[in-house]
Amino acid sequence: MGSTTDHAFNVYRGTFIQLSRLPASGSKPELCRDKGALWVSTADGRIKGWDWKAHDDNGFEDLMTRSRWVDLDDVEATDVKFHSAKTKVKVIRADEERNEFFFPGFIDTHIHAPQYPNAGLFGSSTLLDWLETYTFPVESGFGAQPDPKAGLQTQTKPNDTPISGQNIYNQVIARTLSHGTTCASYFATIHIPATNALAALCHARGQRAFIGRVCMDNPKFCPKYYRDLSPDDSVAATRETIKFVHELDPSGQLVRPIVTPRFAPTCSEAALQGLGKLAAEFDPPLHIQTHISENRNEVDLVKELFPEADSYTGVYEKHNLLTPRTILAHAVHLTPEERKLVRARDSKISHCPASNSALGSGICPVRTFIDEGITVGLGTDVSGGYSPSILEAARQACLVSRLLGHTAQWKEDHPCVDKKDEGREKISVAESLYLATRGGAAVVDMAQDIGGFDMEMLWDVQLIQLGGVKGTEQGPLGSVCNGVKDNVNAGPVGNVDLFGTETWEEKIEKWVWSGDDRNVKAVWVGGRLVHTRG
Amino acid sequence: MGSTTDHAFNVYRGTFIQLSRLPASGSKPELCRDKGALWVSTADGRIKGWDWKAHDDNGFEDLMTRSRWVDLDDVEATDVKFHSAKTKVKVIRADEERNEFFFPGFIDTHIHAPQYPNAGLFGSSTLLDWLETYTFPVESGFGAQPDPKAGLQTQTKPNDTPISGQNIYNQVIARTLSHGTTCASYFATIHIPATNALAALCHARGQRAFIGRVCMDNPKFCPKYYRDLSPDDSVAATRETIKFVHELDPSGQLVRPIVTPRFAPTCSEAALQGLGKLAAEFDPPLHIQTHISENRNEVDLVKELFPEADSYTGVYEKHNLLTPRTILAHAVHLTPEERKLVRARDSKISHCPASNSALGSGICPVRTFIDEGITVGLGTDVSGGYSPSILEAARQACLVSRLLGHTAQWKEDHPCVDKKDEGREKISVAESLYLATRGGAAVVDMAQDIGGFDMEMLWDVQLIQLGGVKGTEQGPLGSVCNGVKDNVNAGPVGNVDLFGTETWEEKIEKWVWSGDDRNVKAVWVGGRLVHTRG
Repeated sequence: MGSTTDHAFNVYRGTFIQLSRLPASGSKPELCRDKGALWVSTADGRIKGWDWKAHDDNGFEDLMTRSRWVDLDDVEATDVKFHSAKTKVKVIRADEERNEFFFPGFIDTHIHAPQYPNAGLFGSSTLLDWLETYTFPVESGFGAQPDPKAGLQTQTKPNDTPISGQNIYNQVIARTLSHGTTCASYFATIHIPATNALAALCHARGQRAFIGRVCMDNPKFCPKYYRDLSPDDSVAATRETIKFVHELDPSGQLVRPIVTPRFAPTCSEAALQGLGKLAAEFDPPLHIQTHISENRNEVDLVKELFPEADSYTGVYEKHNLLTPRTILAHAVHLTPEERKLVRARDSKISHCPASNSALGSGICPVRTFIDEGITVGLGTDVSGGYSPSILEAARQACLVSRLLGHTAQWKEDHPCVDKKDEGREKISVAESLYLATRGGAAVVDMAQDIGGFDMEMLWDVQLIQLGGVKGTEQGPLGSVCNGVKDNVNAGPVGNVDLFGTETWEEKIEKWVWSGDDRNVKAVWVGGRLVHTRG
Repeated sequence: MGSTTDHAFNVYRGTFIQLSRLPASGSKPELCRDKGALWVSTADGRIKGWDWKAHDDNGFEDLMTRSRWVDLDDVEATDVKFHSAKTKVKVIRADEERNEFFFPGFIDTHIHAPQYPNAGLFGSSTLLDWLETYTFPVESGFGAQPDPKAGLQTQTKPNDTPISGQNIYNQVIARTLSHGTTCASYFATIHIPATNALAALCHARGQRAFIGRVCMDNPKFCPKYYRDLSPDDSVAATRETIKFVHELDPSGQLVRPIVTPRFAPTCSEAALQGLGKLAAEFDPPLHIQTHISENRNEVDLVKELFPEADSYTGVYEKHNLLTPRTILAHAVHLTPEERKLVRARDSKISHCPASNSALGSGICPVRTFIDEGITVGLGTDVSGGYSPSILEAARQACLVSRLLGHTAQWKEDHPCVDKKDEGREKISVAESLYLATRGGAAVVDMAQDIGGFDMEMLWDVQLIQLGGVKGTEQGPLGSVCNGVKDNVNAGPVGNVDLFGTETWEEKIEKWVWSGDDRNVKAVWVGGRLVHTRG
């Protein structure tokens, strides 16, 4: 991150758990665990090496001596001279006794920042009525209503965003960081100032982010009070936000723009075409994100609005919006031909199970995507999804995959199942965490940079702590006479109860099934500490 | 609870939210809210009255004066004489400013206490292999292995339970209380001492509970290392635990026994018959709990093991185990005829959605049950369910009901759906909370005593607190330069973020979708304070 420090490396000591890189497509992700020390350059926030022999004090001292390192916290004033030939490092420990370990930060490949105040509000609505009832009203509050007389939006400064909107963005960043999300691909609103404000806030708080101004100009679907004035406006306003983000972070080290047609029904063909062109103008081409085939009524609507297109996916294909840097959210009801096209273009899928269940959209056949070689990551889809936590998304990915075999669609697609393939559709805990880390990294086209502990990867990491149950040696019978005082108050952080009988893999399973933000003790992005548990 | 106090009433002030009693079957549950004061006798822990005019200070003072009450905390030593003609009361407030309100305690109609250490551990298993791999091993650790030479179990004292088992039971009670569960229907293990220990701990800690010694004697299915020695042993050992619980709590004020054949495949016909008879011996007859039709392989197994039975439900019917006090857990795959029989016997259903998803069992058609007049409540089913929280069960009930329409079974059962009936199967937030409170109360046959704020109901209640987001008046832009300090640390409890724009019904929706034990500030059972947030 290039921040000024008085030391060359941060040296992380303790247990490191990650998902291994898949050796071949079709192979199953596995959790792997290493103990020892790993060091990150303070100059660029990247991993420069590790030593798994440094798993105990002797091994660690060997490493320090060999490397001619000296621990900042051990350097006393009088020692400066003595240590002058040595390199200063800062040591950060994960405490084994407290079930602490380092884990790659989560990547949220699909989240609508302005919808956060609506998290948990959707009644029994489904996609299209939900947009109208809940979503467009809240998003429209992030800026002035477009004035047809004024033509293009003229305000661009983040500070022109209503304070209420700024506070919401600030909160959604704080919350996602607190849940361990080190990188998020955000949909903002149609407003230039608010989109720029979201970029500025992510940049200031240190969250890695893709920032998308939402494009929606089709009067057939978009409400009058909340839409782009024209296809040209969609493109020009997006261009404004791209300019702002590029000026804010010229090398795209932390924050980058992403071209964001909301979804086919909200966009005119001219706008879609203009946005495809816009993304391709840059070198490398800009990222693109949109929604696809979330809900059956929506699929029908696309057929109606784009009668000449072969399919929903075909609409995006036609306008050059299917690229290797395109994130397609949901993809619940794609046909085999559409999946083939997605694969051919190497576009990516954001699986948003919490949202798909909450809005009754259906169950995305993740196993099918993976088997066909399509890259998948997880999205919270706040506020179609009720939670800003990717851990919750991972849990929901596991859950819905266990219901997938009961759906009519799956049964239709798999009329005969070999005994050996029974249950193959289920996503394991390890696989869900793969989707949350390495999978998400590949979805945002950063598989070389984030999602694991590989050499030269950025230190986008969370420090996890799990709770241990403090049993009494003589047993609680007899000693319990007042229910008010209990183990829970005295002991664990959060809801993960470890009884000391678990293997390390089981500890991870318990974390995924019962963990929450209380288990996230610290979060770093690009080596910078951006969140600590309060 | 008849505990000794120096005051006659606890007077609760603030907002009270509950589900209204259903005026007629088929009507939809609604949330209702009252503000004012409600009082509970310290002698019996029951609600003796309320005054919704006492919603402000003037109204409250009127109530105090009119009732000739004096607030304990206002009584100073010198005032004793002055107040001697008055009745002392203790005032407990829910703070409106902090989004606090009183809500009926949750009722967990199906939970396996000894399985708690396994919460979150099941890999990708389904019911039958999960029992063998995870469940029987952990349960068998709660006592000595049955010794065929010894005949019946001879140990009965709670203290004969291994300390590890006592600690687990203590923790599961602490955890369920912390999640607002004021009443639970527990499966224990086959061991008499451990079953009695669970009863003793619930009694000591003040959780309302039904305690069931698990009966499983069928060598065809049960492992040798963990089963009753004979049908007689099943009945005699259960009788021992009933005796213990009746001696512990003679009037059944807090803790009661429940006859618990694990499920048909684990029980011989002789055991089932003996247990049906045992329950009927008492006046009123004892409660009964078991599992039914959770998983398709299990349904097939029952057909195989009981070739003469008409159906799975028929097995229980034959042995007089279907009574109005019978709790049938799961009921995912019942046939229409079986549902009719359940309805005719007025047996109750415990819906355990988290478990049914986690084990891939399927989706219980709750709407169908309700439409047919069958009583339904919620169960966590720890550890088929990964969470001891009924709030999580309510959330999952909403989620799976939104996927139900996608299942092959539902489509088969509803080939044509009227436009007006589209989405009828969805469980609303209000309905899920009804199932969690009044529904659960009816399932344990205590609809007159718990589940709401009716006159003479027991004060089994949780005090809920939701978090408010503290926005800055000048906006966060510019003032944010350090991501480490944030709103989240400074402000809310838990993950429910209120922005001040929500209606009270929306606050409840947010609670259900994002709440957890952090939002449970205090819990009372029968008027006794049994948990406060640490």
